[in-house]
Amino acid sequence: MSTTTARDRLVGAAQDLFATQGVGATSPRAVLAASGVGQGSLYHHFPTKHDLAVAAVGATVDDALAQAMRSLGTDAPAIERLVAYLERPRDALAGCKVGRHTSDQAVMDDEGLRDVLDAYFVRLLGVLTAIFRETGLPADVARDRAHAALAIIQGGYVLARATQDPGALTAAVRGFVGLLTTQEKNT
Amino acid sequence: MSTTTARDRLVGAAQDLFATQGVGATSPRAVLAASGVGQGSLYHHFPTKHDLAVAAVGATVDDALAQAMRSLGTDAPAIERLVAYLERPRDALAGCKVGRHTSDQAVMDDEGLRDVLDAYFVRLLGVLTAIFRETGLPADVARDRAHAALAIIQGGYVLARATQDPGALTAAVRGFVGLLTTQEKNT
Repeated sequence: MSTTTARDRLVGAAQDLFATQGVGATSPRAVLAASGVGQGSLYHHFPTKHDLAVAAVGATVDDALAQAMRSLGTDAPAIERLVAYLERPRDALAGCKVGRHTSDQAVMDDEGLRDVLDAYFVRLLGVLTAIFRETGLPADVARDRAHAALAIIQGGYVLARATQDPGALTAAVRGFVGLLTTQEKNT
Repeated sequence: MSTTTARDRLVGAAQDLFATQGVGATSPRAVLAASGVGQGSLYHHFPTKHDLAVAAVGATVDDALAQAMRSLGTDAPAIERLVAYLERPRDALAGCKVGRHTSDQAVMDDEGLRDVLDAYFVRLLGVLTAIFRETGLPADVARDRAHAALAIIQGGYVLARATQDPGALTAAVRGFVGLLTTQEKNT
């Protein structure tokens, strides 16, 4: 029981620090301090920083997928699910906890971590493509549009951080949803 | 003359290293080594890392704006300029040399550097908004669409890096351009 708790606390502390500082800039020592667990637990559960990073980034990906599915996995019509996903409130200035790792060289140099990021986006792209297909689009068009929808969110985060204006993400989403829904009315 | 050259070489070396390693992870010593200039020149031109970073990120922003204007600043019809900008070849796996700095905590913690990034995106958003207005859109819709266009590029880079597939950026662009040009035909 206490073992599970120590592991969870280490993973949670790593998730928080990775999301704000990046993986490369976070030392296992900093995670240990933030978690409040004993040093022995860290090395018992995560012999290397790589092990800790795979667990923490993996947990962040699982959380993000679960949150996406709360919008995308409902019984609502396809276009409503897409709009709900695009428009859900996001902490724009914090950046995407998953996407921002793509600018972290320590992540990109680690094949195991790259695989975790890749799996997240491939999964989301698959779900979004299937929903765009439900709207009657051919497979290749649906796939392109799924890429565009994900890019709007990821790029909206980048714009919001760059301009320090959370409204930049919502403006990007509004611009895209405007095109999507006009399109919908015309077809 | 040789002074100008040393300065340019320092800025060029810093631009390259910042684009691949990030600002936070690049030491002035590494820039010095890559530039091949003498140590005295570095401290003469750039007494602090902040000074060097502002000059290098500023130069990268100037290059990026000049490149954007080669698509956006022509005499072609508005929609053609927008599509040319969106579709121009990009080194997707390298990430945006400007946008990726938004995930670099060392950049975001430095007000001078944040101002440089902010100025880049504000400038590009202004140009894109004006071009969308030329297509006959009201100001607020044009502004949202400009945000969406920029987000597609920035987010496309994120997707390409995350999936290690340059095709992810072109798919996002194709999805967005498909919506834009259908829209155009319908109005």
